[in-house]
Amino acid sequence: MSTIHKFNGTPSQFSWEGIPVHAYGEEFVGVTRQVPIGEAEGSDNFTIRYFRLEPGTHSNLEHHPHEHGVIVVHGRARCQLNEQFHDVGPFDSIYITGNDLHQFVQQGDEPFGFICVIKAKK
Amino acid sequence: MSTIHKFNGTPSQFSWEGIPVHAYGEEFVGVTRQVPIGEAEGSDNFTIRYFRLEPGTHSNLEHHPHEHGVIVVHGRARCQLNEQFHDVGPFDSIYITGNDLHQFVQQGDEPFGFICVIKAKK
Repeated sequence: MSTIHKFNGTPSQFSWEGIPVHAYGEEFVGVTRQVPIGEAEGSDNFTIRYFRLEPGTHSNLEHHPHEHGVIVVHGRARCQLNEQFHDVGPFDSIYITGNDLHQFVQQGDEPFGFICVIKAKK
Repeated sequence: MSTIHKFNGTPSQFSWEGIPVHAYGEEFVGVTRQVPIGEAEGSDNFTIRYFRLEPGTHSNLEHHPHEHGVIVVHGRARCQLNEQFHDVGPFDSIYITGNDLHQFVQQGDEPFGFICVIKAKK
């Protein structure tokens, strides 16, 4: 069945009705994950997540076989892609190939938020 | 190779460096499609498109086997899901199951824009 989750957040603190806020990982205080579209909605092919990095935080520096499709929604970050660093901000699109090393390091006073698409785990 | 397309649009007219604007269909004047992440970037599993509906326009009323994951980014629309109608606006998430009848009809004075994820055509 098709599902709508109404957005009930603010421009720099995204949230959706019925969608819980998860910790990104115990060692990453100030980083959270929400999943507005995924397995709970019945999505067979992809999962759409929202990540929020408070000022002074960063995501994990990692690589893995699955690719990411990222659209920034608020704030700024330094984005590492292998040996290169890029300044990214609202609505920049970032395609991260499988196995490329990547990390987001929040910049400035505003929290950094982005939509991140991955293939469904099947 | 990972790819970044810098956003170079405005809050109600999204565009990205290097991403062309396509007509949605000849019979849909005032509706456009851009693909910031897809086959051109090497995405094997999903495609991330952006659709823009000028005031007074709508998307096609259609159904098909593939599912959609939608995040609204600007403006308002009436969203039809089978026999039901919903008012949707910025950052509402809409999961449209495969084979559900669906349509967006723009509402108000602002153009309606949304990110729409589909599985890659392979």
